[in-house]
Amino acid sequence: MNISQLASAEQSSLVERRRYLHMHPELSFHETETYQYILSHLKSLRHVQVREEVGGKGIVAKISGGTGPTIAFRADFDALPIQDEKEVPYKSTVPGVMHACGHDGHTSTLLSLATILSQHHDELAGSVVLLFQFAEEIAPGGAAPMISDGALEGVDAVYGNHFWSQFETHTIHSAKGPLMASPDMFDVTIYGRGGHGAKPHMTIDAVVVMAEFIMNIQTIIARNVNPIDAGVLTIGKVEAGNTFNVISDRATCSGTVRTFEPEVQKLISTALENELKGLAVSKGITYDLNYVKGYPAVINPEEGYEVIKRAAARAGLDFADAPPMMIGEDFSYYLLQKPGAFFLTGSGNKDKQTTAPHHHPMFDLDEDAMTTTLTMFLAILEEEGVINAQ
Amino acid sequence: MNISQLASAEQSSLVERRRYLHMHPELSFHETETYQYILSHLKSLRHVQVREEVGGKGIVAKISGGTGPTIAFRADFDALPIQDEKEVPYKSTVPGVMHACGHDGHTSTLLSLATILSQHHDELAGSVVLLFQFAEEIAPGGAAPMISDGALEGVDAVYGNHFWSQFETHTIHSAKGPLMASPDMFDVTIYGRGGHGAKPHMTIDAVVVMAEFIMNIQTIIARNVNPIDAGVLTIGKVEAGNTFNVISDRATCSGTVRTFEPEVQKLISTALENELKGLAVSKGITYDLNYVKGYPAVINPEEGYEVIKRAAARAGLDFADAPPMMIGEDFSYYLLQKPGAFFLTGSGNKDKQTTAPHHHPMFDLDEDAMTTTLTMFLAILEEEGVINAQ
Amino acid sequence: MNISQLASAEQSSLVERRRYLHMHPELSFHETETYQYILSHLKSLRHVQVREEVGGKGIVAKISGGTGPTIAFRADFDALPIQDEKEVPYKSTVPGVMHACGHDGHTSTLLSLATILSQHHDELAGSVVLLFQFAEEIAPGGAAPMISDGALEGVDAVYGNHFWSQFETHTIHSAKGPLMASPDMFDVTIYGRGGHGAKPHMTIDAVVVMAEFIMNIQTIIARNVNPIDAGVLTIGKVEAGNTFNVISDRATCSGTVRTFEPEVQKLISTALENELKGLAVSKGITYDLNYVKGYPAVINPEEGYEVIKRAAARAGLDFADAPPMMIGEDFSYYLLQKPGAFFLTGSGNKDKQTTAPHHHPMFDLDEDAMTTTLTMFLAILEEEGVINAQ
Amino acid sequence: MNISQLASAEQSSLVERRRYLHMHPELSFHETETYQYILSHLKSLRHVQVREEVGGKGIVAKISGGTGPTIAFRADFDALPIQDEKEVPYKSTVPGVMHACGHDGHTSTLLSLATILSQHHDELAGSVVLLFQFAEEIAPGGAAPMISDGALEGVDAVYGNHFWSQFETHTIHSAKGPLMASPDMFDVTIYGRGGHGAKPHMTIDAVVVMAEFIMNIQTIIARNVNPIDAGVLTIGKVEAGNTFNVISDRATCSGTVRTFEPEVQKLISTALENELKGLAVSKGITYDLNYVKGYPAVINPEEGYEVIKRAAARAGLDFADAPPMMIGEDFSYYLLQKPGAFFLTGSGNKDKQTTAPHHHPMFDLDEDAMTTTLTMFLAILEEEGVINAQ
Repeated sequence: MNISQLASAEQSSLVERRRYLHMHPELSFHETETYQYILSHLKSLRHVQVREEVGGKGIVAKISGGTGPTIAFRADFDALPIQDEKEVPYKSTVPGVMHACGHDGHTSTLLSLATILSQHHDELAGSVVLLFQFAEEIAPGGAAPMISDGALEGVDAVYGNHFWSQFETHTIHSAKGPLMASPDMFDVTIYGRGGHGAKPHMTIDAVVVMAEFIMNIQTIIARNVNPIDAGVLTIGKVEAGNTFNVISDRATCSGTVRTFEPEVQKLISTALENELKGLAVSKGITYDLNYVKGYPAVINPEEGYEVIKRAAARAGLDFADAPPMMIGEDFSYYLLQKPGAFFLTGSGNKDKQTTAPHHHPMFDLDEDAMTTTLTMFLAILEEEGVINAQ
Repeated sequence: MNISQLASAEQSSLVERRRYLHMHPELSFHETETYQYILSHLKSLRHVQVREEVGGKGIVAKISGGTGPTIAFRADFDALPIQDEKEVPYKSTVPGVMHACGHDGHTSTLLSLATILSQHHDELAGSVVLLFQFAEEIAPGGAAPMISDGALEGVDAVYGNHFWSQFETHTIHSAKGPLMASPDMFDVTIYGRGGHGAKPHMTIDAVVVMAEFIMNIQTIIARNVNPIDAGVLTIGKVEAGNTFNVISDRATCSGTVRTFEPEVQKLISTALENELKGLAVSKGITYDLNYVKGYPAVINPEEGYEVIKRAAARAGLDFADAPPMMIGEDFSYYLLQKPGAFFLTGSGNKDKQTTAPHHHPMFDLDEDAMTTTLTMFLAILEEEGVINAQ
Repeated sequence: MNISQLASAEQSSLVERRRYLHMHPELSFHETETYQYILSHLKSLRHVQVREEVGGKGIVAKISGGTGPTIAFRADFDALPIQDEKEVPYKSTVPGVMHACGHDGHTSTLLSLATILSQHHDELAGSVVLLFQFAEEIAPGGAAPMISDGALEGVDAVYGNHFWSQFETHTIHSAKGPLMASPDMFDVTIYGRGGHGAKPHMTIDAVVVMAEFIMNIQTIIARNVNPIDAGVLTIGKVEAGNTFNVISDRATCSGTVRTFEPEVQKLISTALENELKGLAVSKGITYDLNYVKGYPAVINPEEGYEVIKRAAARAGLDFADAPPMMIGEDFSYYLLQKPGAFFLTGSGNKDKQTTAPHHHPMFDLDEDAMTTTLTMFLAILEEEGVINAQ
Repeated sequence: MNISQLASAEQSSLVERRRYLHMHPELSFHETETYQYILSHLKSLRHVQVREEVGGKGIVAKISGGTGPTIAFRADFDALPIQDEKEVPYKSTVPGVMHACGHDGHTSTLLSLATILSQHHDELAGSVVLLFQFAEEIAPGGAAPMISDGALEGVDAVYGNHFWSQFETHTIHSAKGPLMASPDMFDVTIYGRGGHGAKPHMTIDAVVVMAEFIMNIQTIIARNVNPIDAGVLTIGKVEAGNTFNVISDRATCSGTVRTFEPEVQKLISTALENELKGLAVSKGITYDLNYVKGYPAVINPEEGYEVIKRAAARAGLDFADAPPMMIGEDFSYYLLQKPGAFFLTGSGNKDKQTTAPHHHPMFDLDEDAMTTTLTMFLAILEEEGVINAQ
């Protein structure tokens, strides 16, 4: 098989299916029509074994071949609560909902891979599993329940990609080790004792205690985290009090913690709570801390990273190391179970106006990026010995 | 004249007029009917010279006598935007508006003083000016425009009182020097540069700068103000950001400064702005500071204070020094122009359930406190040599 | 008795004895020769009953009269470890030791009072106790042990004075209530965990915790102390670490707390320790806190204050209220046991170059202030009914 | 040439020379005898061209061969002001001076390389330059002046190593990109206005301003530095004031900044000064800031790193990526001029008690690590095509 030719042959199908999905976006955990659309294509293919309702609206398709390894690929298919503001024929038909992150392209690419593998099933030295995942955008996500429901059974390695509009089309980026962060969320309420603004001594001033809290936790990143480990501790929102001359009885804040290492995550969340415990002692406040862990970090094992790098070379694509990104991705759950890697496929093309950031109302894909990714998937299968390199 | 007998004879009038006013409260700067009510009583009296529309809805009444001094008394007559929650026959008839600070009683008392002086005008060794003042509750208040419009012309000393539910009825409190504070208000907006919660280095985090501001200004009271001078710097309200994972581009706070000395007020407000100027340099923020000075502090001169003390003794009332209070009163404007003093008449009586704090929906007066105050006014006139002591 | 004449007659003795003491200063708790000097004068007087070694090097002299009250006066007689830099004939003859606070004058004045009372013992309607106190400058001071040893037995009221170079000679100052503060001392050591300056995550950085401590305790004065109560919390000394690139395992600081009210003192010292307890929880430090209470505050009861005021009027001296001073004085121990008051006698005279601050190497007395004080003492005895006013 | 055999043959010489140097350590910039010792060996070899006094006490030796590339190696030879506390026959003979960092081994290894290359000069396809560098331990170091004096002229790539007791003998570590940090030093003095501890309002309290400074600069690492960039800002030493009850007029601190990127270094040092500028505005202090840049960071280019990795494989040594270290090394100056790389040779061996940290009085080398490094140098020359691989 010549992987570039195989991928190119799918080009019009890639575009057609992606545009259909783009026009019919569905929010996370509500992807009923998208689910049927994927299912219908997979069922139309021969030699593709389909498992429905995996961990929810997940679909696992398998194309079995020889005794070689079983390699999985994943595409997510949920959209975002954003109004599509592009003026294109394939603009979203659903008000306020949009494929503004490129999951439509991920799915279309995996459907084309299914087509190719269906046609070439008898040439496969191993097997291929296609993971169509619902609900990546909203925690707890679809990856974890699909895995619990056996989506990775028998799988030897799992790969996934994300289009990335900040990189140029036809380039591949990945990282050995941390690629995407674990994005946690927390809410804090500090309860003091309110009172007249002219009588601070009768109160426990929650505004000042909150300020002290915010200043004191700066030392967590500055002093407690290993300088060569990345960590972010941001407070995005603060609220306290109703009027200028009354001391507020409480103050609230909400923030996010971003880390790549579970130990760093643990260190920061523990230090955060210790600070509150300390303020309870020093200031006499009470507090609520609601700390919600986000997806784990996406950490590529070296082996999987090297597969991506070699596959890119094999596919004639430029490869570069990506800096770790402080955003989250639930692909991490797959990598906690199996070898493999996650990579980024450039989809930014100034001429095609596809360089708007993800989650932006003007976001669009350079649709050539789908062919690129499809070629990468085939190259990975070659690297893994599932299809024969020519 | 026996001042106690004179005052007692007014008791039923005091109650009647106060209850009428209590049932018909009007907000500051909107006291049209109250104005007419006062005017109509004053015009019904002989030997009372009435000046209308003084500096707004102010009324200045004068009862002239011998060549002795001219002594002024002031009563304020505005009400508050508070719902009356008492169950009494004289409950406010205006939804959401209430005489919750006792100004109805102040006014009724001064009207009775007018009655008495009208009757005894020919025994006066000097003259008496009665200042009926609108709008004490809301800055800029009624005192300043009334003074500008000549309310204190020819006046030698000016006295005023406030009922005080936290002191027992029949007790008189005052202070040599500071009695009530200057209550200022300020709003601060700190403008940083917003951004993604995972990318603090691309931003100027307004939340952290606000926390730094709040912590750093604690040193103003702790270090910059003379320890024996009173000063309060409270931030009652803070707001920043919309969501946990976005760094806010701005943060706002509102607060109050309370002082007795103009130099301390100046020191605090200057230090507050200097802190913001410093943060502009150190953090690259910009800021808005809106600092609104409140009424000046009520500072009783020693002489006036001694008059109050002696008048209380003369009237057979218990006198005690009041600690300085961090609340404001625009009676201060009169004392900036003339000798005199401000004092508090206890109006708290557990049995009559009149101990709720001022500005509280259950606030009520022990109506006997009006007789007490009326006696005090007459005793002050004796002390000042306007009426003859027996 | 004409008190002014009596006092004036002592003028040369006052100067002579004061200069002798000035030339022979002795440090606190080491006043052996001064003790003998005082004793020798007292023993030379008739009708003066002397009790030696009261609570240490204290001397209590009593001149008994009629059945009226027993009034005590106190003079302290210790000097300071300061080099006398004045060029005067009566300059200190002891290198590095000096009467730089005026205690020599206090003692000389009380010795002259003894002389006068000895001569007029048969005219006394009551009795007089003279307290010659050692060691006022250094805690725990001489007042407490003298009281424990019975110095105040049978005393009805006790008075004391201090010369004050910042006020003009012949003026008397005192205060109703707080006059001098309670000056406490504290040492804090924060124990973190040291390490390489490039590896903060392996350490608990005592320097940063100390900074947090210092910032956080600013809120004690700013928020916890009633704005109308005076309180000072100063850290005078901080030390941490040996070199720029090693994280220190500990940081120390020393400071002082000044208050007038025991409740405020308690509030501050408790809040200080609570802050450390909180840091132990939030940062994992341990700490030592050594908090040493100073003398209680000198709080004049109203009655005693009024005696001072009337005595000053009687003596024809200008009287003014003194602002509370944040320094300490162990005269407070006497006032905790008995009625009475403490007052300041102005001793500043530009022409005589006696305006240098107390504890300054150029400090000197306007010796006329001793006559003034002696007159005051006699006037107090008149006010108290021990000697007959003329 | 079989590189392992060549290296092994030098084993006894390596040990002998290293022990001689170990017994005769000399401090940075005072390496006169060490200089002569090196020179004397080099001059004893044929075909080694020696340049003396390069940039100071530097020596550049060259063994010329064919037209291939010219590859340089560097060894530093200064010792430390530390007392040798090991009990070994080759213990330092100089009190208080010790080769506690392994530079003796670096130098011995490079001398053996000189021997080997001298013997095999006619087999060299290119040339080799040996850089014997004085004064690595103390800024400004010996590398910069040696380069200025032409040490790198004609050189195509430069390599260096450091023994590392925290890694096991026979392992090689290096990093693509940042390996060692830029260690800067700074001193800050904050000038306030001193005064009595009870009168903070008359002062600018330098202790509190210093605390504010230390707290506020925590935000530099926490918020201003890109989370994926490493940065350290440590204050190791703080001093202010002499006694507990006097407000200090100044406070000083000293600290270190560690970074890998010049932009991050610039960002931190600028933010540090901005904080002081801000405090000058907000608090009215003045300040001194003395900021001394340390050596640049050691950043291995990818190509040089790959040479190290392949050379290790060729030499049969385990290779692993080293995490970036926040310590400094002036080898960085060579890499700013030429391609190449720096690597670490494990020298820790529990059985031989050589695992004490560098700069520790018990530090010692596993002397086998010299053979390992010598093999690495030869393997690098093979990789670079200067000697023929077998």
